[in-house]
Amino acid sequence: MPPETSPLASTLHEIAPRSGVAFTLDRGERLTVIDPEGEQVADLLAFVRGDLDEVISSGRTLDYASRIYLTTGDPIYSNRSNVLLRIVADTVGRHDFLLTPCSADTFRIIYGDTHPHRGCFGNLAAALAPYGVVPDRIPVAFNVFMNVTVDGGTGELKVEPPLSRAGDHVTFQAECDLVIGLTACSALQSNNNSFKPIRYRIDPARA
Amino acid sequence: MPPETSPLASTLHEIAPRSGVAFTLDRGERLTVIDPEGEQVADLLAFVRGDLDEVISSGRTLDYASRIYLTTGDPIYSNRSNVLLRIVADTVGRHDFLLTPCSADTFRIIYGDTHPHRGCFGNLAAALAPYGVVPDRIPVAFNVFMNVTVDGGTGELKVEPPLSRAGDHVTFQAECDLVIGLTACSALQSNNNSFKPIRYRIDPARA
Ligand SMILES: [Zn+2]
Ligand SMILES: [Zn+2]
Repeated sequence: MPPETSPLASTLHEIAPRSGVAFTLDRGERLTVIDPEGEQVADLLAFVRGDLDEVISSGRTLDYASRIYLTTGDPIYSNRSNVLLRIVADTVGRHDFLLTPCSADTFRIIYGDTHPHRGCFGNLAAALAPYGVVPDRIPVAFNVFMNVTVDGGTGELKVEPPLSRAGDHVTFQAECDLVIGLTACSALQSNNNSFKPIRYRIDPARA
Repeated sequence: MPPETSPLASTLHEIAPRSGVAFTLDRGERLTVIDPEGEQVADLLAFVRGDLDEVISSGRTLDYASRIYLTTGDPIYSNRSNVLLRIVADTVGRHDFLLTPCSADTFRIIYGDTHPHRGCFGNLAAALAPYGVVPDRIPVAFNVFMNVTVDGGTGELKVEPPLSRAGDHVTFQAECDLVIGLTACSALQSNNNSFKPIRYRIDPARA
């Protein structure tokens, strides 16, 4: 039978612009995050299912990698130094793990908005609430496709347009049973001034 | 009377090498962290007293500063985007807010130690436990005097000897009532291969 009707064919999901979702990902399953139009960021969180106090940690991951730019082969560690996800494919190679998810605070403090959008933080909080994650437990997300450069001399951070083009994607393999939060990012600067959707696909564990 | 017997003269405390302490700091009080011998890192944490779920956030602080190197005048934000501390004096200007506190995991994963020291993480967890802080709530610390450089091109992180010399210091002003955790860091690489003490002083709020 043709691949698109195979019982193993995975469904392609779409996250609307400036929104977010949460879902479970089982150990061994692979999550592919796709930028369908290009230059669109997706904030990714992963919590250990059954013990939500264990969550991805930028501080531990960057420390053990000795590198701020992660790509294929790199593990994403938890706050207990366990590997929660492993990057197994990456067509871009530039993602951010330094900056907080955009939020009403971001838009108020950085953009000066008086009626700020809830941002990725609010979208993640809302999507993850049914799984039992409270807002204070949301750490620095792995910001897929976000292009943050660092001036090694001055330490200046710049949010540049993503390097992702239409169809670019990153695949993460779950190293344990997880709850995932994922957004189509809501910050103008991070997405070259337009809000676009994000797509994702979950593929079963390989035999 | 001479200054050293004034009732307002603040006591100089010493943190022994490879250890840590916790204490309260009231709104308006100033904490000065001193490197008595030079080239010694001190990991600093601050939690809001009465609501320990609010804690310093590297992701929010670096985002709002648009800079990885913080110094005099810079605020340190919480995970709820409130300013917990403000740097009001700094004789060094090079501190780290990217990497996790060193821990038994650090020493096992990076150094290959088979009987690893508990590190700043273990020292902070032990010192903060009487205040009700559990280990999973320990985020990226503000690593006073830690000298982490970033290669802007490759993203490579390097832990270099601290730029602090004997007597260098940083002063933080509390913007609300806090619980502070503070260490003399236990990682060889962060401290140019020797473990030294850290001193600190608390000065009253200015009238
Ligand atoms: Zn966002
Ligand atoms: Zn340390």
